[in-house]
Amino acid sequence: MRAKKVVLAYSGGVDTSVCIPYLKHEWGVEQVVALAADLGQGEDLEAVRQKALASGADQAIVQDARDQFVFDYAFAALQANALYEGRYPLATALARPLIARLLVQCAHAVGADGVAHGCTGKGNDQVRFDVSIAALDPRLKVLAPAREWGMSREETIAYGERYGIPAPVKKKSPYSIDFNLLGRSIECGILEDPWAEPPEEVYAMTRPINQTPEEPTYVEIDFERGIPVSLDANPLEPVKLVSELNRLAGDNGVGRIDMVENRLVGIKSREIYECPAGVVLVLAHQALEALTLPREVTNYKRGIEDTYAQLVYNGLWYSPLRGALDSFIDFTQKRVSGTIRVRLHRGTATVVGRRSTYSLYDPDLATYSEGDSFDHRAAEGFIYVWGLPTRVWARLDNP
Amino acid sequence: MRAKKVVLAYSGGVDTSVCIPYLKHEWGVEQVVALAADLGQGEDLEAVRQKALASGADQAIVQDARDQFVFDYAFAALQANALYEGRYPLATALARPLIARLLVQCAHAVGADGVAHGCTGKGNDQVRFDVSIAALDPRLKVLAPAREWGMSREETIAYGERYGIPAPVKKKSPYSIDFNLLGRSIECGILEDPWAEPPEEVYAMTRPINQTPEEPTYVEIDFERGIPVSLDANPLEPVKLVSELNRLAGDNGVGRIDMVENRLVGIKSREIYECPAGVVLVLAHQALEALTLPREVTNYKRGIEDTYAQLVYNGLWYSPLRGALDSFIDFTQKRVSGTIRVRLHRGTATVVGRRSTYSLYDPDLATYSEGDSFDHRAAEGFIYVWGLPTRVWARLDNP
Amino acid sequence: MRAKKVVLAYSGGVDTSVCIPYLKHEWGVEQVVALAADLGQGEDLEAVRQKALASGADQAIVQDARDQFVFDYAFAALQANALYEGRYPLATALARPLIARLLVQCAHAVGADGVAHGCTGKGNDQVRFDVSIAALDPRLKVLAPAREWGMSREETIAYGERYGIPAPVKKKSPYSIDFNLLGRSIECGILEDPWAEPPEEVYAMTRPINQTPEEPTYVEIDFERGIPVSLDANPLEPVKLVSELNRLAGDNGVGRIDMVENRLVGIKSREIYECPAGVVLVLAHQALEALTLPREVTNYKRGIEDTYAQLVYNGLWYSPLRGALDSFIDFTQKRVSGTIRVRLHRGTATVVGRRSTYSLYDPDLATYSEGDSFDHRAAEGFIYVWGLPTRVWARLDNP
Amino acid sequence: MRAKKVVLAYSGGVDTSVCIPYLKHEWGVEQVVALAADLGQGEDLEAVRQKALASGADQAIVQDARDQFVFDYAFAALQANALYEGRYPLATALARPLIARLLVQCAHAVGADGVAHGCTGKGNDQVRFDVSIAALDPRLKVLAPAREWGMSREETIAYGERYGIPAPVKKKSPYSIDFNLLGRSIECGILEDPWAEPPEEVYAMTRPINQTPEEPTYVEIDFERGIPVSLDANPLEPVKLVSELNRLAGDNGVGRIDMVENRLVGIKSREIYECPAGVVLVLAHQALEALTLPREVTNYKRGIEDTYAQLVYNGLWYSPLRGALDSFIDFTQKRVSGTIRVRLHRGTATVVGRRSTYSLYDPDLATYSEGDSFDHRAAEGFIYVWGLPTRVWARLDNP
Repeated sequence: MRAKKVVLAYSGGVDTSVCIPYLKHEWGVEQVVALAADLGQGEDLEAVRQKALASGADQAIVQDARDQFVFDYAFAALQANALYEGRYPLATALARPLIARLLVQCAHAVGADGVAHGCTGKGNDQVRFDVSIAALDPRLKVLAPAREWGMSREETIAYGERYGIPAPVKKKSPYSIDFNLLGRSIECGILEDPWAEPPEEVYAMTRPINQTPEEPTYVEIDFERGIPVSLDANPLEPVKLVSELNRLAGDNGVGRIDMVENRLVGIKSREIYECPAGVVLVLAHQALEALTLPREVTNYKRGIEDTYAQLVYNGLWYSPLRGALDSFIDFTQKRVSGTIRVRLHRGTATVVGRRSTYSLYDPDLATYSEGDSFDHRAAEGFIYVWGLPTRVWARLDNP
Repeated sequence: MRAKKVVLAYSGGVDTSVCIPYLKHEWGVEQVVALAADLGQGEDLEAVRQKALASGADQAIVQDARDQFVFDYAFAALQANALYEGRYPLATALARPLIARLLVQCAHAVGADGVAHGCTGKGNDQVRFDVSIAALDPRLKVLAPAREWGMSREETIAYGERYGIPAPVKKKSPYSIDFNLLGRSIECGILEDPWAEPPEEVYAMTRPINQTPEEPTYVEIDFERGIPVSLDANPLEPVKLVSELNRLAGDNGVGRIDMVENRLVGIKSREIYECPAGVVLVLAHQALEALTLPREVTNYKRGIEDTYAQLVYNGLWYSPLRGALDSFIDFTQKRVSGTIRVRLHRGTATVVGRRSTYSLYDPDLATYSEGDSFDHRAAEGFIYVWGLPTRVWARLDNP
Repeated sequence: MRAKKVVLAYSGGVDTSVCIPYLKHEWGVEQVVALAADLGQGEDLEAVRQKALASGADQAIVQDARDQFVFDYAFAALQANALYEGRYPLATALARPLIARLLVQCAHAVGADGVAHGCTGKGNDQVRFDVSIAALDPRLKVLAPAREWGMSREETIAYGERYGIPAPVKKKSPYSIDFNLLGRSIECGILEDPWAEPPEEVYAMTRPINQTPEEPTYVEIDFERGIPVSLDANPLEPVKLVSELNRLAGDNGVGRIDMVENRLVGIKSREIYECPAGVVLVLAHQALEALTLPREVTNYKRGIEDTYAQLVYNGLWYSPLRGALDSFIDFTQKRVSGTIRVRLHRGTATVVGRRSTYSLYDPDLATYSEGDSFDHRAAEGFIYVWGLPTRVWARLDNP
Repeated sequence: MRAKKVVLAYSGGVDTSVCIPYLKHEWGVEQVVALAADLGQGEDLEAVRQKALASGADQAIVQDARDQFVFDYAFAALQANALYEGRYPLATALARPLIARLLVQCAHAVGADGVAHGCTGKGNDQVRFDVSIAALDPRLKVLAPAREWGMSREETIAYGERYGIPAPVKKKSPYSIDFNLLGRSIECGILEDPWAEPPEEVYAMTRPINQTPEEPTYVEIDFERGIPVSLDANPLEPVKLVSELNRLAGDNGVGRIDMVENRLVGIKSREIYECPAGVVLVLAHQALEALTLPREVTNYKRGIEDTYAQLVYNGLWYSPLRGALDSFIDFTQKRVSGTIRVRLHRGTATVVGRRSTYSLYDPDLATYSEGDSFDHRAAEGFIYVWGLPTRVWARLDNP
């Protein structure tokens, strides 16, 4: 017996459904509690809950974690401008530590000695789950049946049918898809050929460019201390703001990402993402930082951001390094308040205006027109000192 | 007398024209040699040369430096994916060290003891010129009349008229523009208001989105060791390749950049750039590196790239640190050969295909389908070790 | 008139004494308030105060800032393990922003519109003062007479004598020395020859090795959250603790530093430092972090520390980047509590023991003896994944 | 059968001796070739060779790799100032990739299809061997019997005796020791208690301080392009130079390191090292770089060095990132030529003199005496520009 009572991260799909009888009949788990988290994936979660019970779960719980997801995870990553390998806003990667937290909290609530997930052995998610759970409660056992069972898809379905889990009605999509409020991740099928252009069918949140409006949409986003708080001057709760921005950006074809990335387990993979709100928010937040933070801070923060994105991608959300990086970032956000105006048009998102009471942009310093306030003679002194090491170095070649 | 014979970087504009009599009559320079470099700015440089002579230059030279510009400067920066503050491909910044080199070479050839430029005292270009010249020959005097003369535009024109330099015929554009093969930089006028959207009139290389073709343009770019060598399988010389790509991307509205950036002299300024080819080439080069370089190399190289872009922007092209960074970069480019397919459409540039004989992408490792070649059980061992520090750390909270 | 009323950073030396009449008679300052800060330099500061008045100061103030110096500046830098260019614990550099703060506070208290210091034009201290003052109150004027007056030493003394400042009695030491509780900085004289070994006479806080005790001294330092709180189990106030450790380490010849460093203004200089307590505390603090922080945190923190040291050296104590770095550091110090045992002997300081309730060192994991708790088979899986990118890369050479 | 013919890294100890029969009788290997590399460990390697044959090896080879070790590995790491976690010169870690290369070359020469080593499952060396071998020839099988056999020490000895391997005569030392020309690594026994001071018996290359000479030893080290070429003006081959410096430094008690470090496999361990020559060479090389490299280069190189040390420690010598870092480093060494004078005394090593024809130290710039060549007025301009961002930032607090 690997564990007596287990909380299983449950999605409603075949794999996590089959985990239920497998845990009980193969691994001797006495009770399985299925937990489905609502992260804005837009499914009928009561149906998912019923499916868990029908699959043999002793208890099935649906938990709305959308507010927590956006505020504690997505917006923290936004303040870090976190883009994995410079491009991907980490929609799936951010959901995993939250689900791990829900699992651990639930395990404590129901008195379970283990938690389980349905990840297989070559993706990133297994690492994110295992390490996050260990960080939150290293005494809990972590069970990953699908990583060990070695069944093919057909065998998995057949195994499920033995325990009353019906085979999927419609033919399986060739794609593997993860979906939440922050975006969709699409893998497999033809996408495994990095030379192939993704077919239109893989997208769901964004329109193709030729079906977007002829005229641009402008949106003004207000930030307070690095957090978006309103769209076009309408204050919105985090979940509502992200949903609305997903719609606006998606309608204008903004948010598609096509990349070859490096998984934590040493494999390159080709990934398609749709993150309409995520892409626009990072762009706008960066533009506001460009206005309100000094050069040295944004320069140094770029390195912090890259490390932050790697940590999150690599499952180290609950590591002390992430905490320390977040302390750095929090400090920098004190004055990142103001308004960014974005033009969404034909698949493009462009910052066309920015303003802030904390703006460090000083037109009297910047202007090349007369009457400016910069001390021009200072430039000579500055260049003398700035260039001194180069001159001393060059003298050795030109004695 | 500040210098006896001076080579002046000459553009044909009012300011550099006025520098000629100013150097001779105010600063006692005996001979002024005007040097105009052809960097693909598309002007009638023979007319510029005549203007220099009419303005009092003792000698006027036009030098075609386009090949050198693209190959030694632009493509080196491309291998570095150099984007200042993550966005600007450094078109103007890359031209300055080359012009400095031409000035120094010319000074040696004509026996000059000084070189001169027309930069004023609050921009980046003065630093780039002064430091680059000092790096190449620290014995040469550098004269910057416009940094010191303190004349308003009207006074400058009036001063010029005294020495036969005609006042500009048409009203001055409100914008300050720099232009070469790699792109245009536009400042001043309404652009000094960071809230104002740039008017369409500031752009010249790129069409507005609504005037771009309905259907996308696909272009395949071949790279050899990080250098683009052909478009759609047609081998092209560097200058021709960049020109052609400027046209293709510009016609599809690709390459506009609107940003608030940090000048070296501590000032924030709002800049508009058009770099159609530059934007597409960096995007394609990054995608090819994602396919052909291991994770650790691209991760570390991102930091190198950021520093590289800062060095170039800050006038340190000829510094030993740039040389050392270039050695790192050169080493990484050995296998950055292959083909990238880019879709240009309505202002967007998207990599939709990539292939290389050096591809590290292995579908048999990446696939989630059965029969893959990844050792699944290894994942458990990996996660055990990867998560060990986190577990040991967490045990202190959960004894 | 450059300012009406000025607070002058006053040391009692000839230069700052001459500043008083110079400010009044040459630059038209109406009132000069001399401020001498006690940072543990061990001088008779009442005599210094009298000297200021005798030199013409309208008011003279001595302020004991030792506690603040150690706690807010030195211990913050200790938590950062801040060593400029890997070696110098920044004793002088840390004092400058504190003196700047005292000057600004005093200026506000006495209603001054300016502050002044006696730094000349090629050192680091002028930058540290000017920038720190501007950061604290950019409206205050900063006057630096010695940077502008262009008088030789003889002329300075002669100028002083005109205003009743007596010429120094004893022949000036060939060395320029700065001294406070954290250490001494010695420059000039024979030290300007980087090939010359420093003569014994430059040292004052540390014994030469041959005059140190034959037997080692052991000292146990307790830290709480990265702050040293007791020596050999005796709780000590910060100033007392540093003083005592200066004595112990200095008696054993520990704390001498001989280096060629890069000044902010682009000049290399040869510097001798004595920082007995500083050297030992950083060593001990690093050893405690090695025990209590995970690898990823110490690895990343090393980069933070290097930047931190550069910021402090370069006068940017009050910059937002320093604040952000400090937030990172503070977060990491939560568990940096424990005891470090140091052996001081013949000029060496060696950590020979470390313990902490937050120790991450687990003998059951580390031991190579039997019965350990590490899962050996995990190593194979880890190595498979760790080496996978290398294998895929190498396959291209060995198909 | 795991492999048909295997080359085994052979040390002469019980574990690698037992590997021979184990490979043949348990894993069905037909032929075992034992390879012992001479890296300056000072053992009777002909006796080691005989022991391999007596243990059942089909062939036994001793290879002198000392020159290659010092020149290609140790001096490359010296140019990188490579110190793991800021302290350890990587003596053992540098030997592993060389041994891996010898194994692979030997495998190719004798037509083996596998290589083997005697590492167990929780140290760093197994990773270094496995990954280095895979990098050099990913087709070779790597066999690590001791990682899998699960025998206790007694069982291992008993197993050996069955195949004619005599039990060790003297009682096993409580310490695990690795030894080569670059130094000794000592673990286990009482050293596993991080609070315990290491007993004197663990040291072999360095004298205790109280047994060192009363008077200091001075040594002048000449470098050419970052490589040490002579001691006290006597040109010496690399192996001779390191040996001689080991003796000089060891006699003066220099080179002991006592640290808690992070192993690659996520475990903290307490390590004692003796690296007399290594410690002195890095110190001297750093001092020469301080004299001959510009600030920006040494600043950036510090980050490179830290990453370099981690790569070497973590078994990634043959990774493309190490190659790219080495290209950076090579470029910087062009002018790192000159002489460093080091005082060795009572356990201390101190640089007391440095000179170079490429020195960037300019006494006329550095001096505070009159008649210097620095443009003092430039300082004001520099400070204006340097402090401008801080002033603009501070104005928001002090409007």
